[in-house]
Amino acid sequence: MASAPTSGQNAGQTPAGSRPSGRAVDELRKVVLEPGFAKHAEGSCLARFGDTHVLCTATVEERVPPWLKGGGKGWVTAEYGMLPRSTHTRTDREAARGKQSGRTQEIQRLIGRSLRAVTDLAALGERQIRIDCDVLQADGGTRTAAITGSWVALHQAIATLKRFGAVKSDPLVDRVAAISCGIYKGVPVLDLDYAEDSDCDADANFVLTAGGGLVEVQATAEGDPFSEAAFMELLRLARKGTDELASLQLAAVG
Amino acid sequence: MASAPTSGQNAGQTPAGSRPSGRAVDELRKVVLEPGFAKHAEGSCLARFGDTHVLCTATVEERVPPWLKGGGKGWVTAEYGMLPRSTHTRTDREAARGKQSGRTQEIQRLIGRSLRAVTDLAALGERQIRIDCDVLQADGGTRTAAITGSWVALHQAIATLKRFGAVKSDPLVDRVAAISCGIYKGVPVLDLDYAEDSDCDADANFVLTAGGGLVEVQATAEGDPFSEAAFMELLRLARKGTDELASLQLAAVG
Amino acid sequence: MASAPTSGQNAGQTPAGSRPSGRAVDELRKVVLEPGFAKHAEGSCLARFGDTHVLCTATVEERVPPWLKGGGKGWVTAEYGMLPRSTHTRTDREAARGKQSGRTQEIQRLIGRSLRAVTDLAALGERQIRIDCDVLQADGGTRTAAITGSWVALHQAIATLKRFGAVKSDPLVDRVAAISCGIYKGVPVLDLDYAEDSDCDADANFVLTAGGGLVEVQATAEGDPFSEAAFMELLRLARKGTDELASLQLAAVG
Amino acid sequence: MASAPTSGQNAGQTPAGSRPSGRAVDELRKVVLEPGFAKHAEGSCLARFGDTHVLCTATVEERVPPWLKGGGKGWVTAEYGMLPRSTHTRTDREAARGKQSGRTQEIQRLIGRSLRAVTDLAALGERQIRIDCDVLQADGGTRTAAITGSWVALHQAIATLKRFGAVKSDPLVDRVAAISCGIYKGVPVLDLDYAEDSDCDADANFVLTAGGGLVEVQATAEGDPFSEAAFMELLRLARKGTDELASLQLAAVG
Amino acid sequence: MASAPTSGQNAGQTPAGSRPSGRAVDELRKVVLEPGFAKHAEGSCLARFGDTHVLCTATVEERVPPWLKGGGKGWVTAEYGMLPRSTHTRTDREAARGKQSGRTQEIQRLIGRSLRAVTDLAALGERQIRIDCDVLQADGGTRTAAITGSWVALHQAIATLKRFGAVKSDPLVDRVAAISCGIYKGVPVLDLDYAEDSDCDADANFVLTAGGGLVEVQATAEGDPFSEAAFMELLRLARKGTDELASLQLAAVG
Amino acid sequence: MASAPTSGQNAGQTPAGSRPSGRAVDELRKVVLEPGFAKHAEGSCLARFGDTHVLCTATVEERVPPWLKGGGKGWVTAEYGMLPRSTHTRTDREAARGKQSGRTQEIQRLIGRSLRAVTDLAALGERQIRIDCDVLQADGGTRTAAITGSWVALHQAIATLKRFGAVKSDPLVDRVAAISCGIYKGVPVLDLDYAEDSDCDADANFVLTAGGGLVEVQATAEGDPFSEAAFMELLRLARKGTDELASLQLAAVG
Repeated sequence: MASAPTSGQNAGQTPAGSRPSGRAVDELRKVVLEPGFAKHAEGSCLARFGDTHVLCTATVEERVPPWLKGGGKGWVTAEYGMLPRSTHTRTDREAARGKQSGRTQEIQRLIGRSLRAVTDLAALGERQIRIDCDVLQADGGTRTAAITGSWVALHQAIATLKRFGAVKSDPLVDRVAAISCGIYKGVPVLDLDYAEDSDCDADANFVLTAGGGLVEVQATAEGDPFSEAAFMELLRLARKGTDELASLQLAAVG
Repeated sequence: MASAPTSGQNAGQTPAGSRPSGRAVDELRKVVLEPGFAKHAEGSCLARFGDTHVLCTATVEERVPPWLKGGGKGWVTAEYGMLPRSTHTRTDREAARGKQSGRTQEIQRLIGRSLRAVTDLAALGERQIRIDCDVLQADGGTRTAAITGSWVALHQAIATLKRFGAVKSDPLVDRVAAISCGIYKGVPVLDLDYAEDSDCDADANFVLTAGGGLVEVQATAEGDPFSEAAFMELLRLARKGTDELASLQLAAVG
Repeated sequence: MASAPTSGQNAGQTPAGSRPSGRAVDELRKVVLEPGFAKHAEGSCLARFGDTHVLCTATVEERVPPWLKGGGKGWVTAEYGMLPRSTHTRTDREAARGKQSGRTQEIQRLIGRSLRAVTDLAALGERQIRIDCDVLQADGGTRTAAITGSWVALHQAIATLKRFGAVKSDPLVDRVAAISCGIYKGVPVLDLDYAEDSDCDADANFVLTAGGGLVEVQATAEGDPFSEAAFMELLRLARKGTDELASLQLAAVG
Repeated sequence: MASAPTSGQNAGQTPAGSRPSGRAVDELRKVVLEPGFAKHAEGSCLARFGDTHVLCTATVEERVPPWLKGGGKGWVTAEYGMLPRSTHTRTDREAARGKQSGRTQEIQRLIGRSLRAVTDLAALGERQIRIDCDVLQADGGTRTAAITGSWVALHQAIATLKRFGAVKSDPLVDRVAAISCGIYKGVPVLDLDYAEDSDCDADANFVLTAGGGLVEVQATAEGDPFSEAAFMELLRLARKGTDELASLQLAAVG
Repeated sequence: MASAPTSGQNAGQTPAGSRPSGRAVDELRKVVLEPGFAKHAEGSCLARFGDTHVLCTATVEERVPPWLKGGGKGWVTAEYGMLPRSTHTRTDREAARGKQSGRTQEIQRLIGRSLRAVTDLAALGERQIRIDCDVLQADGGTRTAAITGSWVALHQAIATLKRFGAVKSDPLVDRVAAISCGIYKGVPVLDLDYAEDSDCDADANFVLTAGGGLVEVQATAEGDPFSEAAFMELLRLARKGTDELASLQLAAVG
Repeated sequence: MASAPTSGQNAGQTPAGSRPSGRAVDELRKVVLEPGFAKHAEGSCLARFGDTHVLCTATVEERVPPWLKGGGKGWVTAEYGMLPRSTHTRTDREAARGKQSGRTQEIQRLIGRSLRAVTDLAALGERQIRIDCDVLQADGGTRTAAITGSWVALHQAIATLKRFGAVKSDPLVDRVAAISCGIYKGVPVLDLDYAEDSDCDADANFVLTAGGGLVEVQATAEGDPFSEAAFMELLRLARKGTDELASLQLAAVG
């Protein structure tokens, strides 16, 4: 870890070339959030983080899961999938294999929790919003792009509910965005692409609100354990990244 | 059937308005075939037939199914899926339900057979090309868009094999395209969109080669049986439509 | 295709020996429809087309699928299966494998659609008739034997409903029968047996009504595409075959 | 149990009418074993015990399950199924439900064990015989009819192996037959039909060899436990029944 | 069978050493029934038969299976499982494989039937008691230990119902216990451990009531068929064993 | 969050009673690690964290997953399950439902990653160690108890390999332990039990090495997002807890 930046302040000055993409350590890929991409859905957003493209849609259903019936509260849930050839080499189609992988289930549970953390379920009323995140092309960071884009789709769907007077107060209490960070060749960096993700020492996903709160923190050593100091730097980078993403979200729904 | 066109020649003169889209009875939707849409795949094509958008990719695998091993021949196979919110109302995700529907299996078998009909499997050599057709947005005619676009993806993948000298003679012996037709309000029409498809008396899918051959014919009465004369008119319309599609295919791979 | 019969009239004169069974090109196998074969079912028929034996039963259920509830209309649906050793070499039992193949699902959907095309679902009332087609022995043409025999089982079940006054008007509006045809050694022939089916250039299944209507047409090139002229001859043969089958159906329920 | 017969000798004198069928307490239904019923199988038998009809086929495979590979010994295994409408009311198709019931698995394990008990697996050599038992019509006692008929199918398949010199010594060391017994209205009776089976106090299945050995004994109280004396009488009846079945087997393969 | 004991009376005098454990032929392993082992369950018992340890729990549910609704009667059902490394070599986890084996289903059906045979389902009222039997460690005889221990768990659960006045009369009409016996090296012995079970000529499971009734008898020849005399001796041993187990049950719930 | 401790140093002085168990905020439940609990496994440990009891076993297999074959490296993997009545109310058996839940898969992936982080897979050689963690009784914190106990089972299994000279250098490079923390009634506390876990604002799981490294960090807001300061306190508590657990691990294998 000798090569780790001694301070977060000058992280942006790391010489270009240390990352395969030439990005600075605290630099996001080019992010584009394109709302309304899907013709039929109540809300949708194509989230592009560099070559990672995730289509997020929101579907409003006027019913809730059985365990919520009659309680007056709503629900937000998510499903996630990858097109078989979104990846560098083809991945088997989960529908053909007859089950979703553990990774898929982990990701869709994460997306649902992240969105519920900024949703007032009582204000939503007894209805469910289903988020579908489908990866059209993958180059690292699909789950964080999915969360970031889903918030936009969710916002659209809720805007429709508001327009029709179906909700009285705004169920969306904050923006939520997510980004991955990792330790690549000993250096904490922001927004891993596939080249970095497949060769890093640790990777982490942070789900943070525009208001400054932590919703989810997941950090994993890929090989050796990592230090607390390195972890602190990952968190600092993530904050910088999600602040930028939250601004893009605001612009997208503005 | 009194309102059926008395001759194919003046079919184009049917008054606008009889079809929800205002198209002439023998008029295709706007079709765009966009090759190379997917970054990672050996071949790909986004096929857009109006609001129906299907992403087709081709993956080359240097192995064949068990029953072909050691025979020197190759294989072309296909899988098909729909994004949950590609449809007007959300369709359950097949991966979550744990199995592919009968409709899905029927369609992917059809796509595979259609492509193999124009492929010289011996010339391909002992390798498999897997086609994935994923519907991003559905507005009727997804299976025929999938076949038409898959041919372009297959062509790209084979072009790569040829460039690397992996095949000696060209395994692609012809172009193949597909189109739906149907009897809508008593009138045979070309290229049903969803509004027509969900309200027609009969629908049919034709898979035809540029060289004039029939690969697959599937016609189904939705309500009452239909007459042989009406069926003949559907076949005539299909020929007109696939000739136009074959030209677009040629342009796309040109 | 030079050897194709120049006219339908003299098709019967094709020299014996060109078909493995010695049949004329437009000659059905010996067909026997044995109604009432199953002791417990409301309707049943053992359909024998040569060595192809399919047991068809009809079960009346006083409920409909969820999407039809309360609409006053009924439903006819079908399931299909093969005994593991109905075939030349043993086929794995689908119940043991834990799922039905794509082929099975395709066939049972076809049987259901074919029967519904001649059933007035409103006259049937809010009840469901389930058809089970189980192949006891297979020698080609199992799906067409299944459709033809199922009509007899359906007729029996409906006759019972009529006898008890459960339906007011007759829900069965016509007879429907099915037959396969194919291009065998370049010659269009009627009612393929296994020896022909496994070695033909194209095969087709036609579902036609006694009244002259087309319910389903499915034609598939096994190798090279086939010509429109050949397809027309297949349709002509099918009409001749289903007319004979419709007469046998009438005799069976007479 | 006061009404139980005091001696086995006069059991046959119980007044007609105490059984729904009017049979004597120690009287089998009419049993017919029809060998060679299936055209394609190496061995087959349609076993009819009154209105219970089970089609048994034997398939020879020149390979053994993985755990027997290279050991020079063979295997006999069985699968069992019921046609959906073999029963009084329709039973869901196991292939459609996607799994075999506990009852089905219990029965097919029993059939396999019963046949292996009279097979010299070393003499059979490293090959497997698969038995398929499919119930065409059910009226009680399907598993015992299946075992009894399967022995005939197995004998046929082994006879073929002997004819071709594939086995040196005879792998079939004895005959094995099975029958159900039960306590019906307090009286032990032989060969329960459905009317008795669905209303008995206890039922039992016995698998016995012609040579006098016990292969399987399964007795179950349906309501209250039963006495040891009653159980002894069930065993005596079973011996009488399987002796008659073993004679029919001999005649069938003679 | 020449070495079989000539009389049941002196069976206990068989020289030590003929069984791997040194036990007498009619000697149980050390059996301990530990009630209340599980903190959360309404009833529970850890049943230890030597090195075979089975945790049995009883859960009371205030609802019955659909087919019993509104009839005023209750139900007792059971599930069975083995921890993957309860066995000598690891057994695949059934939850990971996605289905329960035939053996598992057979056992859990047996446990349920055995307990229902001593339960007055009308006195239980319209509620269900679910028994879970999980094998923590296996050394032969897991299903009989499960039945014996489950009776204790069931008793506890019912005692709770009685304490709260939820049942008026006692639904438990008798004690039921189970034990395995087998023919080991030609000699009938009681309570097989794994070393004997994996090398015996026949094995049998007996489910008997304290009151002297037979609930279930299952005897299976592992290799050659066995004689009626040997079977009688197995039954005599089982009676001795279950009498001892019934005393331990009484002590456990005393 | 006003009630949050102003400094970590005096956290232990929080008045007893603020936690349902009366524990100090930084106090573990009584933890017992009992190695060698399972008779058959190569390594085992019963880990008890208060009323949470998890049986961990380690199985050595002399083969690796396909993707590692021939690379000379080993693998450590884990499976996790709960007995149906380990929980306060019964949980459906995953084997009966036919699939593992998303939660189960998430946990078993976490256990595997945690153990691999302290294992030198090259030193292990081309073999796999399978860890099974089965929850006998649950009262919160089952996944962290599982990780902590599994390390002891893994150590035992590796000790056996070392004793037999199967490994040359020690594949275990450090100890790893895990603990949950959470924000309960606004106060960060260590080692949540069920009463706290089901009513907390945030919960987190930390997997830390004895050597001071971070292996996994997972923190989730249950309702509102939490602050960075609160998160820092959770990490501090976790370090204290895992240091104590690591001492217990050392004693257990000492």
